[in-house]
Amino acid sequence: MGTELAALKKSADIQRMFKEFGIKPIEEIADLFPNKTLIDIGLLIAHRDFDHLLRGLAQGKKFAIVSGRGPSGPLHLGHILLFSLVKHLQDIFNAEVFIPISDDEKFIFGKVPKLEDAEKWAYDNIRYIAALGFDPNKTHIYISSKTTWVYRYALKCARKMTISMIKSALGTTDSHNPGILFYAAVQIAHILQPTFDYNLPVVVPIGLDQDVFMRLARDVAQLLHVMKPASLYVQFLPGPRGEPMSSSKPETALFVNADSKQAWRIIANLFTGGQGSIREQFLKGGNPDVCHVFLWLKHLFFKNKGEIEVYAEMCRSGELICGLDCKPLLHELVMDFLARLRDAAEKVNIEKFLRDSH
Amino acid sequence: MGTELAALKKSADIQRMFKEFGIKPIEEIADLFPNKTLIDIGLLIAHRDFDHLLRGLAQGKKFAIVSGRGPSGPLHLGHILLFSLVKHLQDIFNAEVFIPISDDEKFIFGKVPKLEDAEKWAYDNIRYIAALGFDPNKTHIYISSKTTWVYRYALKCARKMTISMIKSALGTTDSHNPGILFYAAVQIAHILQPTFDYNLPVVVPIGLDQDVFMRLARDVAQLLHVMKPASLYVQFLPGPRGEPMSSSKPETALFVNADSKQAWRIIANLFTGGQGSIREQFLKGGNPDVCHVFLWLKHLFFKNKGEIEVYAEMCRSGELICGLDCKPLLHELVMDFLARLRDAAEKVNIEKFLRDSH
Repeated sequence: MGTELAALKKSADIQRMFKEFGIKPIEEIADLFPNKTLIDIGLLIAHRDFDHLLRGLAQGKKFAIVSGRGPSGPLHLGHILLFSLVKHLQDIFNAEVFIPISDDEKFIFGKVPKLEDAEKWAYDNIRYIAALGFDPNKTHIYISSKTTWVYRYALKCARKMTISMIKSALGTTDSHNPGILFYAAVQIAHILQPTFDYNLPVVVPIGLDQDVFMRLARDVAQLLHVMKPASLYVQFLPGPRGEPMSSSKPETALFVNADSKQAWRIIANLFTGGQGSIREQFLKGGNPDVCHVFLWLKHLFFKNKGEIEVYAEMCRSGELICGLDCKPLLHELVMDFLARLRDAAEKVNIEKFLRDSH
Repeated sequence: MGTELAALKKSADIQRMFKEFGIKPIEEIADLFPNKTLIDIGLLIAHRDFDHLLRGLAQGKKFAIVSGRGPSGPLHLGHILLFSLVKHLQDIFNAEVFIPISDDEKFIFGKVPKLEDAEKWAYDNIRYIAALGFDPNKTHIYISSKTTWVYRYALKCARKMTISMIKSALGTTDSHNPGILFYAAVQIAHILQPTFDYNLPVVVPIGLDQDVFMRLARDVAQLLHVMKPASLYVQFLPGPRGEPMSSSKPETALFVNADSKQAWRIIANLFTGGQGSIREQFLKGGNPDVCHVFLWLKHLFFKNKGEIEVYAEMCRSGELICGLDCKPLLHELVMDFLARLRDAAEKVNIEKFLRDSH
């Protein structure tokens, strides 16, 4: 785990959040994973109740992963990393995967002028997600506003909620539109659908800063007398400023349709653990623990702890120079990955994934 | 027109409402109706912009009538009267009729425990509505939560609204559920759908006390740059206490599935214009202008002004005794009408009406 992340997890705020909301470090349940790669590379930080799902699995009880996407533009590598994680979890735990594509969310929050614009992006995004290799027999992708059941389940959830409850959780005010409030119920409907329709317990991979949605979903689940969804807290891929990549801030994100130059502009501006000069770095070595180029390599491309350690050691020993070795390597790996992904996205048959899209 | 109604229309409140909100007495546009029966019997009280629709019609531009029903129990005669009016308007103006069956409304307002309960009533109610003789080629009935387009159009409307706007119109508070707020957008979606999908101007028959919904719908229509819906204000059928029949107060309503005894209990308790004793009534005559039994006969059964006047004159002259003549006559007519209606409801093919129900 990087020192930054360690610092984050040690911070008083996070400690309090963990304690108050029943979140636990992922290391506590590392033994329940068939291998510890996801934990070793620092992609999974923490969880709530995921141990219950893994213990159920050991007794033959399947579970579902719900991980959505609001379609207002192309996917970026942060999304790809998240969905790759979901695919990996599907593989190792034989999990059913549910992927709501929330065109309704993007429209109601004003991120696209028309609902149809979000729909157009939905199909683009679905192609890229499906291209990551999900098992079509265990993966359910749907466009939220194009089903009949999302609205019906959202009504069911909404009836157990109050306007105050949403306002205090999300900070909505009376000058917002009423669809924004209702969307809180829609999102909970997405999360609870595998439980409603297939009687499966659910886990949602999410950022720690988004946990308020999970707590709301758990409150509603309890009021509806169904299983509360578990969560897996994920480390997001940092963009050039160190903050998570965001579609609405294109300067922070490396999109799947980026050309070589655009990709280089993002990668060249990532934080590194390098020294002030090449000479100094040869002499003193770099610090991979605070380096975002190293973090990207680890999360996106390295396959095991050994490979990671070897690379980190080369950095520390001064063998690697950020701008001459690591960034060009990352750029090459990214461009190669994207070329293959775009090719797969073009060829994938998305119909097989759209079973619940009605 | 009954004196009560005249009094209502003269009241300062109503006058102010008319002036402030552009509502006009129906008599002002009586000449635009092919016959004046609906106006003569006092069923139509007032309108907003309906003259625009009638003038458009004269130039070959069709219009749509939207009139919904929240399905939480059997229909009562008040609903039947309203839908009969809509059917009559369809006949005389060749109008397209849209009938949203709002299972979502009844569920989200807590009138039924489960959404599926409202759905069960929806099919029952649709049978009775269809049995009134609507033209299946010009009538669109749908169950709100079972379409995909209601939620999508509601999002479109919601994005033009604010939570404050709905709160101040409808008195919603933060302790309500968020679905109640969103339902304001759903209802506007119902009203504007004929305009969105068929480019038709819309008129909604409604009670004066419900006008706030129309004003909200008109504000949203303006923000969406589509035609504002017109309205026709309808006199509701009074129950035993003089207030409009209400499904949630069964003692006020004569339901379509009432047996003879239940129907008599409602009819026997209607207000009349009778005297203190039979003897006195023989001598002085009754007052049909304040009599709800007479109002029911007029609105539900009498066919023209002549028939109404003859009956009223018989009452005034003391020939009719409320409990001996008018109430038994009304009871007989109602039971006969309901027997035929139930028979028709059993036989009707509702599929022909459910074209927009997807």
